Amino acid sequence: MNSSATGRADCGPASGERVRVVEVGPRDGLQNEKQYLRAQVKIELIERLATCGLPVVEATSFVSKRWIPQLADADTVLSKFRRREGVAYPVLVPNVAGLERALEVGAHEIAIFTSPSDAFNRKNINCDTDESLARLAPVVAGALEHGLPVRGYVSCALGCPYQGDMPVADVVRVSRRLVDMGCGEIAVSDTIGSGTARAVREVLRAVAAEVPLPRIAVHFHDTRGQALPNVYVSLEEGIRIVDGSVAGLGGCPYASGAAGNLATEDLVFMLHGLGLETGIDLPALIETARWISAELGRAPASKLARAGLPKRLG
Amino acid sequence: MNSSATGRADCGPASGERVRVVEVGPRDGLQNEKQYLRAQVKIELIERLATCGLPVVEATSFVSKRWIPQLADADTVLSKFRRREGVAYPVLVPNVAGLERALEVGAHEIAIFTSPSDAFNRKNINCDTDESLARLAPVVAGALEHGLPVRGYVSCALGCPYQGDMPVADVVRVSRRLVDMGCGEIAVSDTIGSGTARAVREVLRAVAAEVPLPRIAVHFHDTRGQALPNVYVSLEEGIRIVDGSVAGLGGCPYASGAAGNLATEDLVFMLHGLGLETGIDLPALIETARWISAELGRAPASKLARAGLPKRLG
Repeated sequence: MNSSATGRADCGPASGERVRVVEVGPRDGLQNEKQYLRAQVKIELIERLATCGLPVVEATSFVSKRWIPQLADADTVLSKFRRREGVAYPVLVPNVAGLERALEVGAHEIAIFTSPSDAFNRKNINCDTDESLARLAPVVAGALEHGLPVRGYVSCALGCPYQGDMPVADVVRVSRRLVDMGCGEIAVSDTIGSGTARAVREVLRAVAAEVPLPRIAVHFHDTRGQALPNVYVSLEEGIRIVDGSVAGLGGCPYASGAAGNLATEDLVFMLHGLGLETGIDLPALIETARWISAELGRAPASKLARAGLPKRLG
Repeated sequence: MNSSATGRADCGPASGERVRVVEVGPRDGLQNEKQYLRAQVKIELIERLATCGLPVVEATSFVSKRWIPQLADADTVLSKFRRREGVAYPVLVPNVAGLERALEVGAHEIAIFTSPSDAFNRKNINCDTDESLARLAPVVAGALEHGLPVRGYVSCALGCPYQGDMPVADVVRVSRRLVDMGCGEIAVSDTIGSGTARAVREVLRAVAAEVPLPRIAVHFHDTRGQALPNVYVSLEEGIRIVDGSVAGLGGCPYASGAAGNLATEDLVFMLHGLGLETGIDLPALIETARWISAELGRAPASKLARAGLPKRLG
């Protein structure tokens, strides 16, 4: 259920409510993997994920090949995979040039990213936050002109690797700016997995005061093991759009300081346990997680894919 | 805060509330590790954990050496480590013989275990649940005669590897029986990590109708990544005693189907983020997690010990 009038959320969403799971493995996951995959494997991954029932599969990123060589074949991938009816395949674009590349190969939906942290933006995109927003405005406008919905990622919303804690007011300001420029959805993102439950609740309540709740998504990395409790409090706050990365792509269980995307199958196992509807075939998703992990030559970073579903009665 | 009159819990505990973290790594953790450690390393582990501020360190187990050779040196360990003022060091005992061994080497507090699952008890202790309770009654009575407090583990409270789902009524019945025979504390235990948030809330509410809330602890394994959200809903239900295993001892991140104890440091990171008091020095705990993992020749199974604490402002 959504936040009550008292400002306190009830404990957990009601059974049968729908949660929209956004699969970011082919983009956020693979861009953080050291290993390169052939375009054909990426295409098969996207197709398998859609077949599992994921309503949204972020397919790739049109950032500079110099920045992210793992996704240098974005044009090939986006133009070649078989689209499934009713599934959205957004692609990440950093600027107008990226938008044009995406449009050339038939993108139907895009995502953009910035951060409330000047320090992070300078390191990541070589400009401060206001300059970043100024550069993104024409990207959003251009996408809307072509009828493409736009998702805006608010990176480091729970903490920044350079400046540390993130003032809530800065997260709200950037979220509001992105909505004002035309983003239909805001993804409050704990890019470095430093947030804990109370901070998540606080920032979501502040953003929800400025942005309609149904347009707020959460994107957590499990770097410090907090992603699922953070999703849980997000659900209590009325959030119904949650990101995951199949097999925990982007975070290797062995690596120290792993990026640690929240594994989609661990997320869906919790959501289904809460009686929530996702439309996702969990056993098929686990199979897909094991398959892509084998393609990467390692065990899945997801606990569910390693342990398997528990035995049920009957 | 505790459950409200409506039966719905508020969202999360109040800042400044105390949570008692029970460290089970030296017992539940090490008994699930394939590798043996020298008694001296176990002794150092127990001493380090107490120094980190853990109020309870379950030191070892007096089960048959044939069952758990990893803890065959229980007598040596328990008689040799330096006790820290104000810290409790319970030991697990399976029967009267185990209790006598524990008493000989100066145990001050014990823990016993059974399960509501006849199938699990038959496999694990070769008798059904009622017979198990009958065998435990003199153990508890004997401990109380010597003034030793007793904790009762209710294993497979969220699911059984043999019978599958666990009826809540059976968990309540066994919990009530253990309290009636003299257990001061009940640990509702998800031994195989199959429980999700709603099931945890349901079983805790049912047990809390029969057992006073301050005497109920939760013991989660992270086999399927659900331990922390399950702790979170437990806190919402008013639970203030939570088990953890330093470095996630008992669960190897590489192993398929790892036992996956909840890592104490990941737990404490969440608790402190919620503004709860534990008395634990988290950086020292992370150091201890890294040290014992090195002794085992592997990376910590805990995400926090791998990634480290996030940067904070100032």
